[in-house]
Amino acid sequence: MKEPYKLTATEAGKLMKDGSLTVEAYAKSLLLRIRARNDVVKAWAYLDPEFVLEQARRLDRVPEGERGLLHGVAVGVKDVILTKDMPTALNSDIYKNQPAGGIDATCITIVRASGALILGKTTTTEFAAIADGGGPTTNPHDTTRTPGGSSSGSGAAVGDFQVPLALGTQTGGSTLRPGSFNSIYAFKPTWGAISREGLAQFSITCDTLGLYARSVADLQLLAKVFQLADDEAVLATDFGLEGARVAFCRTPVWPRAGAGTRDAWERAWALLRVKGVVVEELMLPEEFGEITKTWHRDVLAGEGRTSFLGHYLIGKDKMHAKIKCHVENMSPKLSRKAQLEAYDGCAKLRPVWDEIASKYDIVITPSVIDEAPVGIGNTGDASFNSMWTILQVPAVNVPGFAGENGMPIGLTLVGPRYHDERVLYVAKAIGEVFETEGGFKSKLF
Amino acid sequence: MKEPYKLTATEAGKLMKDGSLTVEAYAKSLLLRIRARNDVVKAWAYLDPEFVLEQARRLDRVPEGERGLLHGVAVGVKDVILTKDMPTALNSDIYKNQPAGGIDATCITIVRASGALILGKTTTTEFAAIADGGGPTTNPHDTTRTPGGSSSGSGAAVGDFQVPLALGTQTGGSTLRPGSFNSIYAFKPTWGAISREGLAQFSITCDTLGLYARSVADLQLLAKVFQLADDEAVLATDFGLEGARVAFCRTPVWPRAGAGTRDAWERAWALLRVKGVVVEELMLPEEFGEITKTWHRDVLAGEGRTSFLGHYLIGKDKMHAKIKCHVENMSPKLSRKAQLEAYDGCAKLRPVWDEIASKYDIVITPSVIDEAPVGIGNTGDASFNSMWTILQVPAVNVPGFAGENGMPIGLTLVGPRYHDERVLYVAKAIGEVFETEGGFKSKLF
Repeated sequence: MKEPYKLTATEAGKLMKDGSLTVEAYAKSLLLRIRARNDVVKAWAYLDPEFVLEQARRLDRVPEGERGLLHGVAVGVKDVILTKDMPTALNSDIYKNQPAGGIDATCITIVRASGALILGKTTTTEFAAIADGGGPTTNPHDTTRTPGGSSSGSGAAVGDFQVPLALGTQTGGSTLRPGSFNSIYAFKPTWGAISREGLAQFSITCDTLGLYARSVADLQLLAKVFQLADDEAVLATDFGLEGARVAFCRTPVWPRAGAGTRDAWERAWALLRVKGVVVEELMLPEEFGEITKTWHRDVLAGEGRTSFLGHYLIGKDKMHAKIKCHVENMSPKLSRKAQLEAYDGCAKLRPVWDEIASKYDIVITPSVIDEAPVGIGNTGDASFNSMWTILQVPAVNVPGFAGENGMPIGLTLVGPRYHDERVLYVAKAIGEVFETEGGFKSKLF
Repeated sequence: MKEPYKLTATEAGKLMKDGSLTVEAYAKSLLLRIRARNDVVKAWAYLDPEFVLEQARRLDRVPEGERGLLHGVAVGVKDVILTKDMPTALNSDIYKNQPAGGIDATCITIVRASGALILGKTTTTEFAAIADGGGPTTNPHDTTRTPGGSSSGSGAAVGDFQVPLALGTQTGGSTLRPGSFNSIYAFKPTWGAISREGLAQFSITCDTLGLYARSVADLQLLAKVFQLADDEAVLATDFGLEGARVAFCRTPVWPRAGAGTRDAWERAWALLRVKGVVVEELMLPEEFGEITKTWHRDVLAGEGRTSFLGHYLIGKDKMHAKIKCHVENMSPKLSRKAQLEAYDGCAKLRPVWDEIASKYDIVITPSVIDEAPVGIGNTGDASFNSMWTILQVPAVNVPGFAGENGMPIGLTLVGPRYHDERVLYVAKAIGEVFETEGGFKSKLF
């Protein structure tokens, strides 16, 4: 048997369900991996090994017939999501010595009810709201580079085999970008498909729970736990690469794409064509350009002004200047009129997108500008992600490609709203191709 | 001097700021009022008099120069809003013996930072999600009748002079309806104008913090605390009744209006005309009828399915059947497609409404079907409120009228999104007329 920490959630879950692996032994393996790697990767904001083992032993006492879908499976939780037995510090000096939260976010209640083992809290940038101040977490594939953000720890911990699953959030690109940088599958479901109760608030229009794993099967497991269900059941016969219709959408920010993403683009196109996929270029109507030009920025500025007021009133001197600017409406000064124009503009485009996307089995689009940049102070750029966040559509990063420095690069698969199961189903078939033939070689083992 | 419990927030705040009334003496007066009335009104889900007095004494020690806008002012908090020092039980058997919440909702952080005295938690229907199961709270103006819901306690406690200010929520009509039933001003600001972090989630599209008070000046004080700010500053010279343009909008659910609301309607129209207001009837374009017919219901059903999943998984046997139905998608069965149609339909009408409303100084519309019905098992009907909730516009109940049984009836003033200050400003002038000449006579004192 593989060392337990190397297993996916699905693999480990199966062994723990039938008792051939105890949760305690599994947890010990993960904790050993963490101990070996934590000095360099630093993905955890809070982790108490003794407490984890206690929880593991409690789970081991659950009778076989009562074990849930995630029985014993370890989950890392971004430190902006409330957990009743662990503090939530939001990487803010204001909440540095916060005691445990008293309540669980709804997403935590749900994974716990399915038997998950909450391993610890993963690092984030301050309030999951900025790309600056990205430290201390490093990219497991090259520790001189950023793991992305704001869900830095969730991306790095899953990518480094310290935990098979993690929860994070996406307001700009905080799920898809760490997905690409750490060579993992990272899924942002349709807005509203999973409760946001208990998540730190930045933008109610954009904030979405993100799911991180090393296989699509694991994301499908989480989708089942969260009861994501498309209107039409996805059948095994529904999708094969042969004859599938796949659109490649460069989006209006394509000129920002670097060599790594451009190369992944060409390769993906070629690989899918060889498999018999009907590939075509998709040009979005011009108005979509407003999203990446001004609307996403304006919605975040307007909503951040409200969301951070409480923190500001009790600790503005301990806040990053950029977050302070939101409350003071200086980021830059924005009228409520402009915010409403952004709301209404995006709202108008959502059904337009759904109709466009429905013509294809999937739409492929860049995840990132390029491979993870050197340095950990800044977690990178969300240019290619923000459109899907504010359109509130399901999007998953599929890994497999490599940049000029051998670092991972992924591409994003997007569908119409509330086609979450469908997007994962297609990601499985396409992911197999990208992972096998995309060119990325992990140096982790 | 009036007995302190009879003071508005503005009046009491002034006295406490300059030290002519101690917070402790003020709190004692409120607690005496509560003790005298609690056996019949039953507005509190949690109240610890000793703890309140301790907090009051702490506030009394704050030096005069450091006292906030709400220094010492008592605030009741609906029991679906997190408070770090008091439990949050959501009127759910699942959370009956919940310990204190560990964290404050952002709105609580904000009022605390302004020096407010959190008095206790006010009653709600289960998860603030149903109109059934309204007990035990009664209407202070007639204890055989409902105070409305779901913010039953916030409405009743403010109406009964047990507290000058309260916080609640509105997803259907839970702010405006208790406003009308208890003869108070109840304000639902623009969606997103105040953070929803720490509020129980039912519908992210509709859930909005609601503010309850006995004067517009008190709501304006709260608006200042929450930093609600229209794009254009509202000036003292901006609005006078003489020559003002006011539209009366019956809405497509007008046929449901009972004698009390119809009578208030006629009176309001006549009263304003006498004051020189240019009054006209406003007919909404036909599509607005979809909101009250299906869209509001469908958005709540689709979003409730997600929001209540966590509660369901750990305690479905302790849930009201209607809430269970949401999770099981049996309320009735709703497709995600229908939910999206409701989203997109409402989103399209929001700017249409803004444009219509901008032609007037204010739009007046019913708050309720009629006066508060007899019985406390059901908290009444949100038909006249749900449109403003899902359009996400500022709306305030203005009291002053009376029904056939002498019970209070209010009318709702509505404006375009993010014209919160403006709506309150106009409500002040119109409220003076309605309160003086509308015909409601309180028997409370």
